[in-house]
This record gives sequence, C-alpha cells and structure tokens, in this order.
Amino acid sequence: MPIPPALLTPDLSTPTDVRLLHSVLHNPGIPPTSTIEAAKRLAAWTAVDKHVLPEHKVIGIGSGSTVPYVVERIVAQGHEVNKDRVFIPTGFQSKELIVNANLRLGDVDQYPIIDVTVDGADEVDHDLNCIKGGGGCHLREKVLAEAADTFVVVADYRKNSEVLGTTFIQGIPIEVASFAYAKVLQNLHLIGSPKAVLRMAKAKAGPVVSDNGNFIIDAPFPAEMMKDPYTLLTRIKMLTGVVEVGLFCQMAKAAYFGNQDGSVTVKWHDGRVEKYNCCIDLRQYVRYLCSHALHWLRSQFAFTFRSKSPLPSSAVERCHHPVWLSVGSTPMDTIVSMHRTASLVLLSYNALMIMSRVYPHT
Amino acid sequence: MPIPPALLTPDLSTPTDVRLLHSVLHNPGIPPTSTIEAAKRLAAWTAVDKHVLPEHKVIGIGSGSTVPYVVERIVAQGHEVNKDRVFIPTGFQSKELIVNANLRLGDVDQYPIIDVTVDGADEVDHDLNCIKGGGGCHLREKVLAEAADTFVVVADYRKNSEVLGTTFIQGIPIEVASFAYAKVLQNLHLIGSPKAVLRMAKAKAGPVVSDNGNFIIDAPFPAEMMKDPYTLLTRIKMLTGVVEVGLFCQMAKAAYFGNQDGSVTVKWHDGRVEKYNCCIDLRQYVRYLCSHALHWLRSQFAFTFRSKSPLPSSAVERCHHPVWLSVGSTPMDTIVSMHRTASLVLLSYNALMIMSRVYPHT
Amino acid sequence: MPIPPALLTPDLSTPTDVRLLHSVLHNPGIPPTSTIEAAKRLAAWTAVDKHVLPEHKVIGIGSGSTVPYVVERIVAQGHEVNKDRVFIPTGFQSKELIVNANLRLGDVDQYPIIDVTVDGADEVDHDLNCIKGGGGCHLREKVLAEAADTFVVVADYRKNSEVLGTTFIQGIPIEVASFAYAKVLQNLHLIGSPKAVLRMAKAKAGPVVSDNGNFIIDAPFPAEMMKDPYTLLTRIKMLTGVVEVGLFCQMAKAAYFGNQDGSVTVKWHDGRVEKYNCCIDLRQYVRYLCSHALHWLRSQFAFTFRSKSPLPSSAVERCHHPVWLSVGSTPMDTIVSMHRTASLVLLSYNALMIMSRVYPHT
Amino acid sequence: MPIPPALLTPDLSTPTDVRLLHSVLHNPGIPPTSTIEAAKRLAAWTAVDKHVLPEHKVIGIGSGSTVPYVVERIVAQGHEVNKDRVFIPTGFQSKELIVNANLRLGDVDQYPIIDVTVDGADEVDHDLNCIKGGGGCHLREKVLAEAADTFVVVADYRKNSEVLGTTFIQGIPIEVASFAYAKVLQNLHLIGSPKAVLRMAKAKAGPVVSDNGNFIIDAPFPAEMMKDPYTLLTRIKMLTGVVEVGLFCQMAKAAYFGNQDGSVTVKWHDGRVEKYNCCIDLRQYVRYLCSHALHWLRSQFAFTFRSKSPLPSSAVERCHHPVWLSVGSTPMDTIVSMHRTASLVLLSYNALMIMSRVYPHT
Repeated sequence: MPIPPALLTPDLSTPTDVRLLHSVLHNPGIPPTSTIEAAKRLAAWTAVDKHVLPEHKVIGIGSGSTVPYVVERIVAQGHEVNKDRVFIPTGFQSKELIVNANLRLGDVDQYPIIDVTVDGADEVDHDLNCIKGGGGCHLREKVLAEAADTFVVVADYRKNSEVLGTTFIQGIPIEVASFAYAKVLQNLHLIGSPKAVLRMAKAKAGPVVSDNGNFIIDAPFPAEMMKDPYTLLTRIKMLTGVVEVGLFCQMAKAAYFGNQDGSVTVKWHDGRVEKYNCCIDLRQYVRYLCSHALHWLRSQFAFTFRSKSPLPSSAVERCHHPVWLSVGSTPMDTIVSMHRTASLVLLSYNALMIMSRVYPHT
Repeated sequence: MPIPPALLTPDLSTPTDVRLLHSVLHNPGIPPTSTIEAAKRLAAWTAVDKHVLPEHKVIGIGSGSTVPYVVERIVAQGHEVNKDRVFIPTGFQSKELIVNANLRLGDVDQYPIIDVTVDGADEVDHDLNCIKGGGGCHLREKVLAEAADTFVVVADYRKNSEVLGTTFIQGIPIEVASFAYAKVLQNLHLIGSPKAVLRMAKAKAGPVVSDNGNFIIDAPFPAEMMKDPYTLLTRIKMLTGVVEVGLFCQMAKAAYFGNQDGSVTVKWHDGRVEKYNCCIDLRQYVRYLCSHALHWLRSQFAFTFRSKSPLPSSAVERCHHPVWLSVGSTPMDTIVSMHRTASLVLLSYNALMIMSRVYPHT
Repeated sequence: MPIPPALLTPDLSTPTDVRLLHSVLHNPGIPPTSTIEAAKRLAAWTAVDKHVLPEHKVIGIGSGSTVPYVVERIVAQGHEVNKDRVFIPTGFQSKELIVNANLRLGDVDQYPIIDVTVDGADEVDHDLNCIKGGGGCHLREKVLAEAADTFVVVADYRKNSEVLGTTFIQGIPIEVASFAYAKVLQNLHLIGSPKAVLRMAKAKAGPVVSDNGNFIIDAPFPAEMMKDPYTLLTRIKMLTGVVEVGLFCQMAKAAYFGNQDGSVTVKWHDGRVEKYNCCIDLRQYVRYLCSHALHWLRSQFAFTFRSKSPLPSSAVERCHHPVWLSVGSTPMDTIVSMHRTASLVLLSYNALMIMSRVYPHT
Repeated sequence: MPIPPALLTPDLSTPTDVRLLHSVLHNPGIPPTSTIEAAKRLAAWTAVDKHVLPEHKVIGIGSGSTVPYVVERIVAQGHEVNKDRVFIPTGFQSKELIVNANLRLGDVDQYPIIDVTVDGADEVDHDLNCIKGGGGCHLREKVLAEAADTFVVVADYRKNSEVLGTTFIQGIPIEVASFAYAKVLQNLHLIGSPKAVLRMAKAKAGPVVSDNGNFIIDAPFPAEMMKDPYTLLTRIKMLTGVVEVGLFCQMAKAAYFGNQDGSVTVKWHDGRVEKYNCCIDLRQYVRYLCSHALHWLRSQFAFTFRSKSPLPSSAVERCHHPVWLSVGSTPMDTIVSMHRTASLVLLSYNALMIMSRVYPHT
C-alpha cells in the first residue's frame, strides 16, 4: 500500500506534538476562514516542512497573505530549533509577524546570505517565473530571494498559471525613483505596455510610496511578451529610473499551491509537478491516542460529538485498518473520524479549528 | 432692498468675461456632479476671488478634493495675470493640477515666502483651527501655510465644526519617522489617545508611507482635549519622532464653506461669520447682454431654450426690476431665466454646466 | 588661410551682443581662477554654443564643477531666448545654479522629454562612455541624459581617457537600496571588484546617503572589464538592489574637453575627434567696432587702458591685416589686440578676465 | 620618572579572564592612541559599569567616537549576560559595532521601551542639556534617549561646558524636511541665528542627507539664548518643517567625562558633580595574583618590567596596606606597580575596573 510522502497535519506521534496541537487549538493565530485560506495554509505548511530544515539558521520571510501560515508553521517547529535562528523580513508585515511570534529579527545587511526564503507570489508560471509586487514590497522580496540558497514560493491555486499575466492582470509592478516616473512611463508605453500607470494610493492623497520611498508603476504587457519574462525583466530593469521589477525569473526552487479541494500542487524548477493529499495514518494515530491522550481528547470533545449526528460508518470502519484517509475530498479540508472504542479522532488542525467554531461550547 | 456684497458668479460686465464664460463652458475642467461638489466649487471660487489678487505672484496650492476648483478659478483669472505667477504645490495632486493647467510650477525651497496659500481641510473649528492630513500631505501643506502671508481654507459644509473631532473622527493625522512609530504610539496612548493607530495602506502591503518617506498615525483625542488644539499640537509635536501634526492652529485668515443650499459661509480669524448667497443683478446683466453680447448668446442658446417649456413668469418678471435673485433655493445651485425680449440669462457657471449637460445639443 | 569653424567668443556682430559682452564683463559670475577652470569654461561655452540652440525649450542641467560655466553661457544667450525655456536640474547644485540665474526651473516628471542635456563627467573613454557619480547624483543625471534628445558632456582634459578607470580610480559609483548594500557588495566582490566599498560620509556619521535616500558603493574593476563598459553596466544594474550604475554607455553625442593650452578637444559619438582654437577675425571685429560701438567701448574702457603700458607692437601690427589670430598658443587662453586709433579691443570675456591678471596694474 | 605605557586590559580575576586579557592585549580592538581616546574609554567604561546592569535586557547604543568603548565594555560583561540582551542602534555606526561584536540587534519599533541608552554628545552643559547631531543622527539618538528608562551620556572633557555653544560652535544641528529647508532657514535667521546654514556634504555633491532622508541645518545661537536650551528647543521644534532638534534637554541622568589626567568627572541630573580616580586595592590584588596568575603574568611581562627602573618606594609601600592608589596623576590613565615579593602587578584600567566590581567594598 502506498504511503504518502508527507503528513501535512501537525505530527501527533509524540506527546510534545499533542501539546502543540492543544496549544494551537486554543491559541489560534490566524484561523482560516475560507477554502482559499485553508489552501494557503496547506501550501505554506507543506513548504515549510519540506524546505525549512533544522540546520537552516537564517530564514527569509516574505510578504503577502500566505506568509502568516509560513510563520505559524515555523513557530510550530518549536522553540528549541528557532532559538538560534534569525529571521529576515521583506517588509512591515513580515516584520510584525516575526516579532509577534517572538522570533529573532535580523536584517539582510547583517545576514547577506540566507539559507532559505519562503515568500508568496501574485502569479507563477510553469517555469516558476513569478510576478510579485502587488503589495509593493518586491524590491526587498527580491533581495531576500536572491540572497537565499533556496527560494520557495507559497500561494493558493489562483496564482498557478501557465503564462504570467493570465490571472494577475493589473500588470507587472515596477518600482521607480519618484522623480523619474513620467520618463519611465513613457519608456514603458513605447516598449509594449501602453496601459502602464502609476499606482495611486487609497489611504493617502497621490501615488503609493513604497517602503523605500519610491513610486510603483503597474505595467501590463501582452501575453506574447509575458511568455519570455526574463527578456522583459532585462528590458525593464535596464531603463534608467527603474529600481526593481516585479518579475522573479529563474529564482524559485519550488512553488507550493494550495488547491480548493485541500490538496497541494507542487511545481519544481526542473519541471516536475507533484500533488499531495493531506493524509494521516489512522492506525498509528489511534494507537497513539489510546496510549497517550485518549482521556484528554475525550474530555475535550466528547460532549461536542455526542451531540452531533453519527458520522458515516464507512469512516468509522476505516479506522480498524491501517489505511490512509484522504481529506482531499471534503470541502473544508477537514475530516472527522471516530474510533470504535469511542475515541474521537480529529484529523487535521483545520478540522479542529473549524469544529471549535462550529461548536463554540467546546 | 439690501444688496449683497459680492457677485459670486463670473463677472460678466466686460466682453473679456464673456469670452471667459464661454471658454469655461466649453472646457469644463471638473464638472460638479453633486451638491457637495457644487458647494466646494462655490467656496473655492469665492476664496480665490477674495484672496488671490493680481498682485500676488507666489501662490501655494493645497491638496484635497476642493483644490481642483481653486485651480480652476485661478486659471479663469486669465493668462495675463498668471503668466508671471509661480505656483507651489503641497503634493502630487496639486502638482498635477498646476501642470495640467499650464501654470508655472515652483518649489517652496525656491520661494520660501508665499503671498497666499489656499488649501482644503478635514475639519475647521470656530477659531479656524484645522485638522488636516487625511490625505497624508499635512507636512507640506503646513509649510506652505506657514510660509504664506495669507492662508485661506476652502471646504464644504461638512468640515465646518464647533470643536475639532466632531465630524472627522478618525483622529489627528500625525506624521512620524518610521523607525519611531511604536514609541510615538506609546506616547500618544499615554497622553490621551488610547486608540491611536498606525495608518495602514490599501494599495500596498504595510503602512502608508508619506511623500516624505514617513509613517502616519491617526490619533483620536477626547473632545475636552480637542477644545484646546494648540496645547495638544504642542504636546504632540514635542514628542521625539513626530515630524508634523495635522493640527493647524492660528494660521488661517478665513475659511470658506460651501453649503448645501448653494450659499457660502465665511468664518474669519477674528470671529466674524458671514454668509453669502450666489446672486446677480439681473437688470444690470440684461442691460449688458443687450449692449454687448446679445447676438452671441442668442446664437449659442436660443435653440435650446426655445425648445424648452416656458420658464415661470415670476422669474421673467423679476428681470424688469433691479432685483437680486438668489439661487440658493434651487436644488442644483443653478438658475435659468429669460429676458422678455428673448435673450437668455444664465446665472452662474454651474447653471451653464448643467444646462449643457441637460441639453447636449447646445 | 583656413578659417576656423567656430567663433568661441561671444558673437559681437550685433549691438545686442555688445550689451551682452558688457553685462558679462561687469557681472562676472564665476571667474576662472586657474588654467583648469579656464579650460572647463572653454569646454562648457563651446558645448552650449554648439548644442543649446534657440529652438531648444527644455534643457537639462547636470552637476559637477563644469556646470556653472554651462549655466553662465546659457544666461549669456539672453533673456529673450531663455524666458520660454525650462531648465531641469539633476540635483541640488544645478537647482541652485538655475534659481540663482533667474532661469525657470522644471521637473523631469513634468517634462519627460528634454531637448538637450549638458552635464559633466568623472571620466570619458574613446567611445564616449562615461563614469559619473563622484558626486552621487548619477541616477538623476542618467534620467536627464536618457530623457534628452541630445546629451553632451563637458569636462576638463583630465577626464579624457582611452579606457575608463584610468584616471578616476575610486571605482564605478553604484547607487543601491540601503538595506541591500551588503548583498550587493558581496555580488560585486564576486563579479570582479573585490575592493568595492560603501562610500562613507564626512559631514555626518555613517555612509553617504544619496538625494534619493540610497547608499553609494564605489566599485573599481580591472581594466580588462572596463574596456567593455556596457557589458559591465548590464551585469551590475541587473543585480537586485542596484538602483543605478554610474556608467553612461552609448548616451553622449559629443564630449567637450577644455585643454591646458586653452584649446578644446571634441570627441564625437561617431569617433571623430576635433580640436578648436579660440579665434576671431580681427579685421571684421574692428570694422564692427568702428561702425557700431566704438564710442561706447571707448567710453567704457578708455580710462582703464590709457593707464596701461603699451601692448606689444606685434599684436598691434596684426590688427592691420585680415588675419586670424589663434589664442591657442597663449598660456592663459586669451588674446588682446588694439585698434590703430588707440582703442583697445577686448576680444572675449575670458580675455578680459585673464588680462586683468596678466596686467595686474589694470 | 618614566611610567610604563598603558595596559588597558580587562578583568583578571579568573583564568578565563587571563586568556581574555591575553587576547585583548594582542588583538586590541580599538586601541586608544591618545589621551583623548583614553579619556573617552574611561568615561564609557565607567558609565557602562554603573548603568548597564545585568538585569537590563534592552540597551540603546548611540553614535559618535565614544561609543566603540561603550560596546567594548558591554562585550566584556561576558556572553552569559549579553546573550539575552537586545541592542538598539541609533545609526549605521552603532549597528556595525553591535553586529561586529556579535551582539543581538533590535529595532526601536520592536522594543519601544529601552532599559538604558548610552550615547555620546557634542557638548553638555551644567544641567546635562546636550547638543547632539554633529554626526547627523540626533533624531534616532533622541528617540532612543527618550525611550530609555535611563539615558547616560559619555564623552571626553572637551564636551563638558557650563553653557552650550561654548566649545561646539558650529551651531545646533537641526534635521529638516528637505523641501522646507529654505523656509526653516529664514525662520531661524529671524529667531536669532542669522548664520544658520544648510550643512553641505563632502563625499557627495549638494547637502548632507540624513539617514532619514532629510537635510541638516547648523544653527548657532547667541550665548544668551543657549543658556535656556529648553525654550530654544521648543521654539525650533515647533517650526513647521523641523523634524528634530539636536538639543537634548532634561533627558540625561548622568554624564561621564573622561579627563586628560585620567580621572572621570560625573555630572548628575540633580546637580551633583563627582570625580572618580581610578583606584585599586593593591593588597587584595596581589593576593589574587599570587594564587591565580602569577606564573602566567610573569612569563608574559617579566622581561618588560625587569628592564624598567624601580617604581617609587612609596607606591611599593602602599601595597602592604589596604590603600587606594590613585592613577589620576599619570598621563596615560594607567599605573603599573610591583609587589616587593617580586610578583608583577599590572594595574591597567581594565583590571582596575573589574576588580572594583569583584571587590565592591572598594
């Protein structure tokens, strides 16, 4: 019987992990509120599990809506491994995440060589070229990506494209020296982006000012040009006044996309594409439950589940066998099962989170 | 019968002004689309007419939604008077307005003494103290206000308060050096603004970055403290890390508010409050029309109005007498009248604008 | 006898120019105090005379020690031609020059297309590639160079090299985002500049901060790499974190170098090299003097020169013949002549300036 | 009588420290090269010993020429105490010091409350008001001073004045928003500093740009105004466009000045003035030497001292008694003594300082 390569849920094989599961349960950092969020978390956790290894001491943390789950998962690796690590943020948001997670903050000027950087993206093509900069942080993000031995992208399925510009249609974010923006706009109009515009702010008058004090232009290019992003990147970056282009070419080693069905698609820099389901070895899990945590779990959840309608017997039956139970087919990336001996098995963190909200009296 | 002190519409007493009226009609810069917009325009135009005099050569142009009407009115003063003027913008928006209006741009470091600065405000109290900085430009705005011999505020009626903080409740905008924002937040929490927060951006990740590269804090204070804005300003500005506070105390000479009924309320620094209606001496106007521009106007508008239903006779009658006809009672701040001899009288620019949209074949 | 292609002195063929000469004479902007300064002025004036034509309305003004003479010469073109021109500065210094000369200041975001930009350089090779950025302004300078239809370099003979890096040995100035400087330094060390260093400030603690808020790295490369500056430029600019490189490749149309002997060497983008002497047709000049301005000049200078010792007869004799008198052979780039009727002719502003030093009893 | 040259070694109380002593001796980090440097070190070390206590976890590190000795002394407190500390730098220099010393770097936005900040000053008056900003870092320095529970100044004797402006005559450093500098200069000229000037850079063209992207004005005021620095500070800071003033009023708890004779003058915020000599209990020290390190020290230094002339018997005599031996009279802030029983005593300042903590009854 095939064994899936990854346990995407918190590993429950040791008492430590029970405590972790428990603490996460009762201190939900950023609870996923939708399938997209659950998909982002899934991708982020998988990427961290695969690429942020105990021997990595300098870690770049990117920006964007997926990054909180990256930090969440790194925190779950435990204080012991994190206490000697330094985390380099790409911007205000990741800095806050690092600080709030009590991780140690560093600067890239202090640590110009980074072991691994995990970051989001606005769109990723089949060669792992990315558009980044929707949040205006692509200069710092690119520095951290380039400084990293391994650069990994995490995102949800909507960012997974064949050709850049398919789903992220507002254009390539281009950071420019503010006094040069008009000249660069003209240049861009000439080289193929007649609709390039200065990005205007909403919470202030005038244009968006980046964290580096520059302006940002959004320049959409025709699909034909987007198919060769490196050539485009070179042409744009060579324009005087351009500080950095939100095209990341030939940088990522892998990209993790959380899918709507709860699975994760992984694209590798060498063209491989993998798909993981979120699985767990129930037999092992139940054995663990019996020996370590049965009472605790029962006390926690018994009431809740007694009040619910009975779970499908098929799920119950499965628990007797050393089967792997996919959660990919459930809409909320969760699954609940129950051992015949009355123990309750919660198969994923998401499940726990959602249950605790569905049944607040838990 | 009392004669109002001002003719707030374009002065039509000379052929030059007819050309102006005509040109404005056919080159509508920013047409007002609502009563609020009409009120803002009314305030802006009145302020310009009163304070931006031909002898003023260095003029500060503020930011905000009322400023386009200020520039519009200055342009209407004619190329002859504007060709020797220099206009100093407070930010990106006013710079664009100045450039688009073909006015000459200058910098405050080049012209540190300004004759008159006209600017908007987020709220104005009975002593002409202002909250400014909703658009994050209050540092440059304050420099231009302070550098000006005369500083005039233009706004709509919603900004006219007894006490600051009544209508603009998001708090006093405070520009801070970015690295000091956490300390300043703490300071603000202690001195009376427990809800002070860093302003977050919407079109980029992280906080708003001002045009000067700083962060912005929005700090609401209790009404009791807002009643003495100068003391509050001093306390905040003296905090290390604070670059500038969006409280403008004892700076404005007058504030012009466009009201919903089309009138303008003017508050002066010495406590006087005046209210103008937008009026015109129809008899004088008709006499002028007959002698100077009847043919022209008829050719422009005759067709339009012939096709319309007859205007109320009362309005027509009034034209025989030296009456002042208020436009304040009409919902769109406009009025149309017609001379018995078939000449048409357009009583305000707003009227013209709206007519030309109502009857596009004009 | 060959006729030199240019009259490098102020054109004296019209009464207007006499007034100009007069005004320059009595309002010496920045008097040259050494041969190097005279050489810079000569190059600057020649470049302006050749490239800043009356039809040019938007003119970029660079930074550096040669630029004051550029502005001086543009001012000498007269108020009439300058009143409709806009001048775009590359930095603080040129802004001050423009403002002090009462010229009209503009921004490159307002005028993204420039007719001609005249700028200095730190070194120029035989293909007109330049090193710029000794003053840290090369980003703005490059924007103005790139935005210009014609980009012209002015400098003294010391900047005239075969290969870049020969005389300007501190390295290529590279503007970098401050937080990325350590990574970029590492990159530069790897690609061939092991001695690249962050430029430290002298009038403040820490590194130089550019006018754009960035840091500056000085990166010397081996001569072999400097021979192909465009390849080097591309490699450096493509490094993430690099804002702009102080290599200007394939941008200049011509470079004017003032030489120690008072002549000007001009290198053109097509490989041509020309050398001008500073000459004048004395016979024509005298005829002009007699018919137009003799009285005026006599009244201006008679007293001064009567008190002087007689000039060498050889110079006097020359004036009887339609000769061209080279000034290239005189050490101070000047020439003096005298009319038979005892009037003295000062042939150029430089001549006047230097005479006052040659004949200090003047 | 010749005195041996200075031995500024650290703590000798344990074998570990002997190794440290050895390494420091042979790898002097920042060796004092003059009396001024020795005086700065003396002040810095004393201040650290008094105010940077083991329970202090967040420590602000200032800028200036004295700060390296502060960091040096903190490092000497040992890895054990420093490993849980975070150090907040005021600028590039202190950041490099912290990083190079392998201390943990933090930001003030992460740690807005600081236990103790130690910083230099350009001048300190009798009320502990300071001029700071010669290095252009006074905004960050002031934030760290204000955020600190305890703010301590370290400097050499030349900075110790009765009235500010006595020795630091270039004026009060004032950081201003760049676009407002001309207006602020005018303001300053009017309020009493007619010679206020923009600080120009030396390693770039144009004015100094601060680490925050602002300009710096140096504004000298007459002594009469400098006697009331708080009033002056308030007037300047309240000027629109002023970001921060290099006057630190009522902030310091104590100021440590290293004097030329090797003593330290301490001025306290309550007006107390103390003067310490650098002392040691020789009898106790010798006892330690005999039991722990005699052989090692002898092997290291025997030759040196054998070759010297004998020390004055009075000093030798004192060693028999629990006396304090002042080092204040030696020019290099050091003292060497020798025990009668042939042991060699190195009485360097480092040794002295640490002993004074080992034997607190000293």
